[in-house]
Amino acid sequence: MKRLIRTEIADLPLSGIELVLHVAELYPGLALGIGEPNFTTPPHIVQAAMDALEQGKTHYSPDEGLPELRSAIAEKTKNDNGFDPDPENEIIVTAGTSPALYGAIQTVLEAGDEVIIPTPAYFSYESIVRMFGGEPVHVAGDPEQRFVPSQDDLATAVSSKTKLLVVCTPNNPTGGVWEKEHLQAALDLAEDHDLLIISDELYEKLVYDDVKHHSIASLDNATERTITINGLSKSHAMTGFRIGWVIAPSEITTNFCKIHRHSTICAPVISQEAAIAALRGPQDSVKAMVREYDRRRKMMVQKINNDVPMMQVQSPKGSFFMFANVKDLIENRVEDMKSSLMNEGKDLLESFPSRLFSTEDLTQSGSLVSMLYLARFARVMAVSGSFFGAGGEGYLRLSFSQEFNQIEKAIERMARTLDQLT
Amino acid sequence: MKRLIRTEIADLPLSGIELVLHVAELYPGLALGIGEPNFTTPPHIVQAAMDALEQGKTHYSPDEGLPELRSAIAEKTKNDNGFDPDPENEIIVTAGTSPALYGAIQTVLEAGDEVIIPTPAYFSYESIVRMFGGEPVHVAGDPEQRFVPSQDDLATAVSSKTKLLVVCTPNNPTGGVWEKEHLQAALDLAEDHDLLIISDELYEKLVYDDVKHHSIASLDNATERTITINGLSKSHAMTGFRIGWVIAPSEITTNFCKIHRHSTICAPVISQEAAIAALRGPQDSVKAMVREYDRRRKMMVQKINNDVPMMQVQSPKGSFFMFANVKDLIENRVEDMKSSLMNEGKDLLESFPSRLFSTEDLTQSGSLVSMLYLARFARVMAVSGSFFGAGGEGYLRLSFSQEFNQIEKAIERMARTLDQLT
Repeated sequence: MKRLIRTEIADLPLSGIELVLHVAELYPGLALGIGEPNFTTPPHIVQAAMDALEQGKTHYSPDEGLPELRSAIAEKTKNDNGFDPDPENEIIVTAGTSPALYGAIQTVLEAGDEVIIPTPAYFSYESIVRMFGGEPVHVAGDPEQRFVPSQDDLATAVSSKTKLLVVCTPNNPTGGVWEKEHLQAALDLAEDHDLLIISDELYEKLVYDDVKHHSIASLDNATERTITINGLSKSHAMTGFRIGWVIAPSEITTNFCKIHRHSTICAPVISQEAAIAALRGPQDSVKAMVREYDRRRKMMVQKINNDVPMMQVQSPKGSFFMFANVKDLIENRVEDMKSSLMNEGKDLLESFPSRLFSTEDLTQSGSLVSMLYLARFARVMAVSGSFFGAGGEGYLRLSFSQEFNQIEKAIERMARTLDQLT
Repeated sequence: MKRLIRTEIADLPLSGIELVLHVAELYPGLALGIGEPNFTTPPHIVQAAMDALEQGKTHYSPDEGLPELRSAIAEKTKNDNGFDPDPENEIIVTAGTSPALYGAIQTVLEAGDEVIIPTPAYFSYESIVRMFGGEPVHVAGDPEQRFVPSQDDLATAVSSKTKLLVVCTPNNPTGGVWEKEHLQAALDLAEDHDLLIISDELYEKLVYDDVKHHSIASLDNATERTITINGLSKSHAMTGFRIGWVIAPSEITTNFCKIHRHSTICAPVISQEAAIAALRGPQDSVKAMVREYDRRRKMMVQKINNDVPMMQVQSPKGSFFMFANVKDLIENRVEDMKSSLMNEGKDLLESFPSRLFSTEDLTQSGSLVSMLYLARFARVMAVSGSFFGAGGEGYLRLSFSQEFNQIEKAIERMARTLDQLT
């Protein structure tokens, strides 16, 4: 009997996202979990999509993306990111940031290669590396340094098999932003060991407190070893449009395109037209959204630290996530939460397909117990830090991409629920 | 020094598409080459996309696709294709048919597995199989049977390593349509050897002369081993929208979704809304497009067989391609064509990056020489049959997805050019 499913896919460990999706489906509308702007797309961008439809721009584009969009991305990169890619040879437009990341890893990763992932980190890095036979190596960031890993810890993780280093700033899930000196240290390491760098900058526009986003590719001699990934989903509230891009040296984009041609053909063309408007049009709406995220962020930090027992947050400098420390909660109340889940909350535990998640799986991490407890009893989706790799246990990811009032109420529910916990 | 690019990607042989794209870029607007409907998307579908934009439907959908779209696909499959997939567990919406095919092969193919590809066949099958470490095994179809392979030839190709059999009907590039008995024979073989089947039915609506399209999954006991791939690009002139789907047993879709979640997240949402309108709305525009393709097809067959020397076509039963036999042309004139290309036409030969295509590469196949000759001297893109695998040499693929008059003129140019060939 042949095996039905490719080994790397069949054996892929569940990444936590499956568990989050299950809870979200069971309890629709949970607060604080969503990694998506609540804003609708700015009207001038929607209008550009409508114009494209009206003008019959419903045919294929070149595989690499519309030339005008690639030029707009090149200009944006020069202005915002401080480096200057060739739009013809170094930029490929993808159907979202995910395919950019996926294709980039497939392009360069050899089975057996190690990939250094500073954690806590977005789920997909680990999963994609494993799908292509690579080995993820976690380097836990220092919570006192907004979860940016120390240069020593990064250096210790390098082996003769290391091929790639992933940098994600501003960070999902921690909200940390890497300073220029952190990026320079990562680049030095990459140069010393001949590593490639994937720089995921999807949250670049969402920074606060006068923090500045830096692109690692803007540092001296960095472009030759850096694959920069970006897109419009978060900055311009365009998640459903599916527009991202990859910027890399032409030897990498040429090979990336071999994959892209067969896996994608081209990114959706109406969305590409909208993306031109997003990049070339007025940016006030981006600034207005960032101001509103900032208002929510400040309220949220204050309210959690004042009102929610056994939970502390540091003010995040970027993204729309904060990474709440719940070590006190776990230390003091994990058994109470487990017992509540096994009694009043057993509907939730029993709803999981036992083939995928046994009760033992579900209760082995204190963060996960806290997540399930808050989902069940406070109607809040505080995503378990354990899903984000080494250094995540003891934390919960909270999003502020929902309306101010919803966030306020959700924090009140968390405060009440945890207050009542005996 | 580490290798920069993953071995399977770096070593991927050029698939012919790169050469076609090069010629298309050099001579914009060549006739007969395009694999894309010239029609604009029907207005009620465009309107549905506009409505979605107006209603702010610009957020993520569920990874698997909008529930309403999956229901519409299930209904369409029941009505058109004679089988009845579960929309919740057996259908995943993808960003075009290419990612459906790509993800399906990645989901089931183990490195070292063999994949039987009846040829001539669409470029991507071979490339994707190679990218995942598989071994394509070509089975050349019988030109007298519209290029459908004989049961014996298929059976001979099976080895202990065979995992998968690809069926594409109606066929790109040949225009052949598999009868029910051909499909039953393929299914019998798959059952005997425990193979999976990928059934690419993208051209299902484009059939002529009262020929009926049959889906292999509609045969008894076929669904358990069949992955059906389909989409709206060709039937509804929606190439730029990027909507396709995969239908398969839930063990396959569940694993497919592990890839899809990280490679795609979800298909573009405005396009998904348009796709609901395409599937549930009136189908007159599809019928009108098919009538027009049919009109072109008849003219083209007659005109080529009457007017173009050393070229014969059989009337294709499906798709918008015909596969012209140019064996006479090659036998009698290949040296003349080569010498014209090396003299007046050397600008074309020299335009290719020699690293990728040497003059020797470009002149070793008679079909390719004919393609380059017609591109250079008749402004026609007659795609070399050699690009489509075993059995393709001696043929040229001609498309009738352009306007009637353009096709007429292109054939006249071919006739004149070949007449003048000394």
